[in-house]
Amino acid sequence: MSEARTDKPERRPENRVLVFDTTLRDGEQSPGISLNPQEKLEIAHQLARLGVDVIEAGFPITSPGDFEAVQLIAREVEGPVICALARTAKQDIDAAWNAIKDAERPRIHTFIATSDIHIERKLQTTREDVKGQARAAVAYARELCDDVEFSPEDGSRSDVEFMAEVIQIAIDEGATTINVPDTVGYTMPHEYAEMFRRLYELVPDLHKVTVSVHCHNDLGLAVANSLAGLMAGCRQVECAVNGIGERAGNAALEEIVMLLHTREPTLGLWTAINTREIARTSRLVSRLTGYPVQPNKAIVGRNAFAHEAGIHQDGVLKDRTTYEIMDARTIGLESNQIVLGKHSGRHALRKALEELGLRVDGAALNQAFQRFKEIADKKKQVTALDLEAIVSDEIKHRPQAYELVAFDVEASSRRAPLARVEVRTPDGETVSGSFTGDGPVDALFSAINAAIGREARLREYRVGAVTGGRDALGEVTVQIELDGRVASGVGVSTDIIEASGKAYVRALSNALADSAAAEAEHHLQRAAREAPTP
Amino acid sequence: MSEARTDKPERRPENRVLVFDTTLRDGEQSPGISLNPQEKLEIAHQLARLGVDVIEAGFPITSPGDFEAVQLIAREVEGPVICALARTAKQDIDAAWNAIKDAERPRIHTFIATSDIHIERKLQTTREDVKGQARAAVAYARELCDDVEFSPEDGSRSDVEFMAEVIQIAIDEGATTINVPDTVGYTMPHEYAEMFRRLYELVPDLHKVTVSVHCHNDLGLAVANSLAGLMAGCRQVECAVNGIGERAGNAALEEIVMLLHTREPTLGLWTAINTREIARTSRLVSRLTGYPVQPNKAIVGRNAFAHEAGIHQDGVLKDRTTYEIMDARTIGLESNQIVLGKHSGRHALRKALEELGLRVDGAALNQAFQRFKEIADKKKQVTALDLEAIVSDEIKHRPQAYELVAFDVEASSRRAPLARVEVRTPDGETVSGSFTGDGPVDALFSAINAAIGREARLREYRVGAVTGGRDALGEVTVQIELDGRVASGVGVSTDIIEASGKAYVRALSNALADSAAAEAEHHLQRAAREAPTP
Repeated sequence: MSEARTDKPERRPENRVLVFDTTLRDGEQSPGISLNPQEKLEIAHQLARLGVDVIEAGFPITSPGDFEAVQLIAREVEGPVICALARTAKQDIDAAWNAIKDAERPRIHTFIATSDIHIERKLQTTREDVKGQARAAVAYARELCDDVEFSPEDGSRSDVEFMAEVIQIAIDEGATTINVPDTVGYTMPHEYAEMFRRLYELVPDLHKVTVSVHCHNDLGLAVANSLAGLMAGCRQVECAVNGIGERAGNAALEEIVMLLHTREPTLGLWTAINTREIARTSRLVSRLTGYPVQPNKAIVGRNAFAHEAGIHQDGVLKDRTTYEIMDARTIGLESNQIVLGKHSGRHALRKALEELGLRVDGAALNQAFQRFKEIADKKKQVTALDLEAIVSDEIKHRPQAYELVAFDVEASSRRAPLARVEVRTPDGETVSGSFTGDGPVDALFSAINAAIGREARLREYRVGAVTGGRDALGEVTVQIELDGRVASGVGVSTDIIEASGKAYVRALSNALADSAAAEAEHHLQRAAREAPTP
Repeated sequence: MSEARTDKPERRPENRVLVFDTTLRDGEQSPGISLNPQEKLEIAHQLARLGVDVIEAGFPITSPGDFEAVQLIAREVEGPVICALARTAKQDIDAAWNAIKDAERPRIHTFIATSDIHIERKLQTTREDVKGQARAAVAYARELCDDVEFSPEDGSRSDVEFMAEVIQIAIDEGATTINVPDTVGYTMPHEYAEMFRRLYELVPDLHKVTVSVHCHNDLGLAVANSLAGLMAGCRQVECAVNGIGERAGNAALEEIVMLLHTREPTLGLWTAINTREIARTSRLVSRLTGYPVQPNKAIVGRNAFAHEAGIHQDGVLKDRTTYEIMDARTIGLESNQIVLGKHSGRHALRKALEELGLRVDGAALNQAFQRFKEIADKKKQVTALDLEAIVSDEIKHRPQAYELVAFDVEASSRRAPLARVEVRTPDGETVSGSFTGDGPVDALFSAINAAIGREARLREYRVGAVTGGRDALGEVTVQIELDGRVASGVGVSTDIIEASGKAYVRALSNALADSAAAEAEHHLQRAAREAPTP
């Protein structure tokens, strides 16, 4: 039977589960995601609002852009611990520390593989060397920072007795959190629980530190494995919003949080997450990463709550407990209330944005208001979801190198599609180009290439609807490759051609900005992202 | 450590897990999915190729269309057991039997809720009445059919002792499979396993029948709960391709199958699934349902295998076992080989289609060839994925009521978008219309409405890329509402405007065909889909 939830269940401090969000590190390593530092900062602010305990902000040694983003987050985001990843090498740890040292509460997370398969084939070294590296890394990290997490990578496939030795060394050297990942998503709940039982037996000192789970979803078991670890005594769960991450991704933050929330009366485990921020966090991450959430995704999919599916509201209310085990309001999924119309003024817009937790002032407010008016002219009702899209479309992007000034596109069944564009360059010059392509979008992109004299190649093109209905805002995400550099851009409009053009020009601007940053910092060592996951 | 897989592990017959696919029943109940009987048949044929043991083809009492689809599948699909769902009422069971009786191996699946919350609030009856209904339903179903499955709905929230009584009655009356669902996706693996342990204890006769799991993914635990049930002794798993289904969906077929496959050396459990058909089955279901698969979806997501993510093939081969626990070839994810170019002839096309398992002859082959030539003119290389899309776009749809003959669309930053169309009506007449809209796609749809004099309303618009790159085929799915009827259509083209127009016209045709079928069978009782899931 469904358990009655009392308003204030007794929450025991020792049963608090710390939520360690790795959306910006493991999640951002998903293929095709290329967040710029401003976008990462925006996500980090939202994670703080969501109430996560730790934000793993990046892997600073891997690129100047990653370093910059971690540093920005460490300096600006208040509340959560800000964590950076580092292999055992001194330069990795230095980069991590330099990026996070300005945070209120910094954490260095260092890792080395303990499975024989990784030791022999990837690291091409010995168990003894791994012990030495772990010892040196944790000791050095603790010289810099009081809060140090250590992960034996590929833990679930490691010889548990050897891994226990390495963990004991890490604790002896001062590690405050020990995270034992299922790096390849291979384990099953009963195995993962048994592994922790053995580890607690072999390393009694584990009771003195925080023990953490980190599970991948290759076999669909990430949430269940995380739960098994928590039931075995772990009190930190590493996870990512929308379950993004390497391959099939990490355990989804929203699933593990709502599992603990819904089953708290049975499990007694709890988190400090403000669940009402879940839906918005999911939308923001999906929009900025360009990773869609499938309709049947648990918790945050469009269909996860029956009343979203068009079933009559009365029926849902009457039958709620017969088919629904969660209340959509708990995750902040109120019906998409109408907030503004075409006659709403600047003050109303600002107030609505504030209600959405978006602080927009000065020039940014003017820009948002102008765009709002354009959209309100075409759409009768501008909803909360529309406003989120407008703001992230218009305001949160970095100053653009290029801007789409004008376009004309003709598509016809009688002749090849034709596009003409005018683009403003960073120098303020207006250049134009035209092209005949296989489709109107292809023609448009080729015309933009022709105008600016670049040969960017389209890698991915995605269209999402922000809201439903005929006058819906469409959101186009494009990913391009320019001179070997991959970048993406987003455009929002009621006109799919306009949204496509804006997205393409922004992707170009991002690619060129990345390129400039890369050249400027070319002297910095760029460690390849070859060993990216614990 | 990763277990070595021997080529022929010893497979014990008692450890064979039967795969019961409910894509066409529970999956098809997902909001917005409206498959016509031909589309359901196509999916059923593919499920047979995949090697599922049971196809739950539908819930015949709920609509004439569902009845027709189940009957078509029962008559045409060879191999799997063909199953139909029925509540305990005689008319439900009659409808189920009439739909499946021509199958080689028919099964009736009947269910009634056993949880107090469902008995009191949904059924508004008593435990005694539930027992009586279960007894009568199973007894009657067995008069008609030797293979009868019974499900105590909301089993995981039921009083286990009462549920055991109901199950004993079902077995006494001749049920051959007992399925205990986690209808609301509430249970946890250890609870679900414990429930089965108690049931086996309370009902020793369960050892004489097939015991089945049916799990929903509301808390992200569907696969883990299914596994827990199988480890507790169950030998049938109910699941759906891509994890579609009510709310957050059912356990994903591909996840549970690949979990058992990958961990067979440990678990000893096995299925008869031909795993190499998994990727194609997933694509087909996604295309026909219009439900996208997110990139980080386990097994069938675009990123599930690292080498899909652009990592150099050599690197993957060298490091395969360090980060990959499955081989992409196992699920049929060979690199998307180039099959044809613009000079390929009809014979080459037919051969390529045959290799894809698509039997296309006569007029359909001519039609496919014509469309192939059009596409090959625009695309240098036509790949296996393109061919799948062309065939399902051009051939597998029902004869159209309307056809898009010509279109001209202008989009511009300087004026409102304008569309002009010509549409051929079912009578062979060509009608035209034009419209100025908020965007070019909106204008196009409005122009089509104007041409045919109908006021269809757009509910959903989705664009997917079939393959990557500038000349990619785009696949547009639209869902419309016309006179209270919801229907969808798909269009494929290198031109997003053309694909949109084709999809819209097809959705209109489907809506009108559904409407005609519904009127013709208006005398049949249409039971509401109010109690849809076990």
